[in-house]
Amino acid sequence: MLESIMKATASDLRYCSIASTLSLIGEKWTILILRDVFHGVTRFDEFLRRLECSPAVLSARLKTLTEAGLLRRVGYREPGERERFEYRPTRAAVELLPVLVGLMQWGDAHLAQNGEGPVQIRSRANGQLVHAAIVDEDGELVSPRDMELLPVARGTSNT
Amino acid sequence: MLESIMKATASDLRYCSIASTLSLIGEKWTILILRDVFHGVTRFDEFLRRLECSPAVLSARLKTLTEAGLLRRVGYREPGERERFEYRPTRAAVELLPVLVGLMQWGDAHLAQNGEGPVQIRSRANGQLVHAAIVDEDGELVSPRDMELLPVARGTSNT
Repeated sequence: MLESIMKATASDLRYCSIASTLSLIGEKWTILILRDVFHGVTRFDEFLRRLECSPAVLSARLKTLTEAGLLRRVGYREPGERERFEYRPTRAAVELLPVLVGLMQWGDAHLAQNGEGPVQIRSRANGQLVHAAIVDEDGELVSPRDMELLPVARGTSNT
Repeated sequence: MLESIMKATASDLRYCSIASTLSLIGEKWTILILRDVFHGVTRFDEFLRRLECSPAVLSARLKTLTEAGLLRRVGYREPGERERFEYRPTRAAVELLPVLVGLMQWGDAHLAQNGEGPVQIRSRANGQLVHAAIVDEDGELVSPRDMELLPVARGTSNT
């Protein structure tokens, strides 16, 4: 991949899923909400307490994530109170986990003091540390030098 | 992981490698430069032609990426011209590939028309499509529900 011949044109590249995804989840509070969701946080007040952002910002970001299909709202009612909503991760959010884990571990290795962050992620099955990697359809690891970028044939409507 | 008990404190969470990494690579032009680097682009004029950003922006982002250890500058000289520099990915940049591949594939699946983007990534070894995933120390796939977040014991200096 590192030495791959450039076949893509500028118009292909402008239509870029990396940039699209980042424009959705790249904002600081958005990614921190997603992180907290995977820590098990579901309720507005708990997000607010942990993130210490403004309620208006939190509300707007939860709305964005819900509309984007990353969170779903589930009603609940505490005794004597009005109905409120919890926010739970969808399958689409779970599919982002390799990105979140990869961002975390790259930051741990390259930006954190002492090369470690505040949390480790382990497999419950065997207690091993886990990390983000690139695998093929059989689930076998693929080395970066064995990756090949191939342009997808497409019509003019997508340029 | 989805149901994990919250043990981390707010101060643990503020010290967050996900947010740190995004603050470095989350800017639009920065991530597009990295993407082009893995397409094999190395030279200023070629980045400029493909990205169509301003030369000042490109220059600033290349400087940021070089200072962050993601690109290294290598001198070259065309006949009759002054020395110029190419930008090549470092090992730290290669370690970001699972993140870039994950961002791309999530965007392809959830944001792109028709559920596919402009490029596919395949293994040269067997021609299979590749994707970002979470694996353990043996390289075996780990399911999201088998992931466990554990706080790392640390002193007060890291809060």
